[in-house]
Amino acid sequence: MVTRCQSAEKCYIGGMSTETLPLPPVRQRGPVDHTIREQIVIAAHAHFTHYGYDKTTVSDLAKAIGFSKAYIYKFFDSKQAIGEAICANCLEGLLTRGRTEAAQGKSATDKLRRLFRTIVSASVELFFDDRKLYDIAAHATLEHWPACGPYMDGLNETLQAIILEGRESGEFERKTPLDETCRSIFYALRPFIDPVFLERSLDLLPDAQTEVTGLVLRSLAP
Amino acid sequence: MVTRCQSAEKCYIGGMSTETLPLPPVRQRGPVDHTIREQIVIAAHAHFTHYGYDKTTVSDLAKAIGFSKAYIYKFFDSKQAIGEAICANCLEGLLTRGRTEAAQGKSATDKLRRLFRTIVSASVELFFDDRKLYDIAAHATLEHWPACGPYMDGLNETLQAIILEGRESGEFERKTPLDETCRSIFYALRPFIDPVFLERSLDLLPDAQTEVTGLVLRSLAP
Repeated sequence: MVTRCQSAEKCYIGGMSTETLPLPPVRQRGPVDHTIREQIVIAAHAHFTHYGYDKTTVSDLAKAIGFSKAYIYKFFDSKQAIGEAICANCLEGLLTRGRTEAAQGKSATDKLRRLFRTIVSASVELFFDDRKLYDIAAHATLEHWPACGPYMDGLNETLQAIILEGRESGEFERKTPLDETCRSIFYALRPFIDPVFLERSLDLLPDAQTEVTGLVLRSLAP
Repeated sequence: MVTRCQSAEKCYIGGMSTETLPLPPVRQRGPVDHTIREQIVIAAHAHFTHYGYDKTTVSDLAKAIGFSKAYIYKFFDSKQAIGEAICANCLEGLLTRGRTEAAQGKSATDKLRRLFRTIVSASVELFFDDRKLYDIAAHATLEHWPACGPYMDGLNETLQAIILEGRESGEFERKTPLDETCRSIFYALRPFIDPVFLERSLDLLPDAQTEVTGLVLRSLAP
């Protein structure tokens, strides 16, 4: 069942009124389903940004988007499932920014510095500027949502590649097992990566993150 | 005014029934006041351990100790003031344990390892075994109680002395400014020192703390 929103004010999907969106018949499958899923995620993201994740129910969301609650449940099992999809999108964006910035580094040292500087500043932007996504990020972290897995894996892969590059170029020491090196770097930088910790480290930024990255680079010296 | 507790069950100061305590006249000053203050802190500590800091009011506490609320207010401005006194005692104990253990180290490297291993394991014991003091520690950290200042200062002094010793003996590098070295070590170890962070790092212990200490020691290599 597709209900259309009666109030133009409350209808937005990706910033557009749902009036402008071609709503397909419910039974349609495949790519169109995927598109609607994406549209719900975008609209929910906008809605949570305005009203907060905690304070919004799926009913509120359905009303605001202009879909019925039942229709939203065709795509998502729960509010958390929508939150996870938003989270996954954002974390993917965060990882891409970090990777792109790191790739421009002229050495492994430079890449490592760029990676963490970008990840931390982009996280602050994403989670705390107007507390946009913090509610969702905090839930994701505290409840170990699966959405965080691919992000942390991706970040670890990126770090590992940088460490390997630095070991090959002779910039970094090679004695410590690679997995221990990566793990300990993440532990040390956790106050600036984990959103819940980051919230309590905001007043220390950017100096504290720069100084810990400095400590990490000294630890990597051959 | 001093009221005596009517129920023996509810009366304890340092584990003793208040019936056994010599309660001095209220107007007495100096050392005796100090003793009563200490007794209130010990009794409040025991009470909070049983019933939780959050859930206890000064009235509850007064009733349990067998003093009137007004009498307790002669010594402490608020529940937080009592919490701070408990906190200060515990943190002093923590610092002493860390220092004593570090002093037994055979080198600066050994001392640094011992200091953080002891501080972290003693913190877990203090704050999380039966969640004894966690409520108070969390308030102290989140609300920046002054009680934390001397502890962090003491910890910093101890670390600084170890770093200086290691620099003199040639164990540690001397290029990085001493204050930056100390600060960045505290930032990196914060997930295991700050009680609020520590709560979320418990399942990583003891390995994570050992690995970060390893990273710190590599960063100190000359």
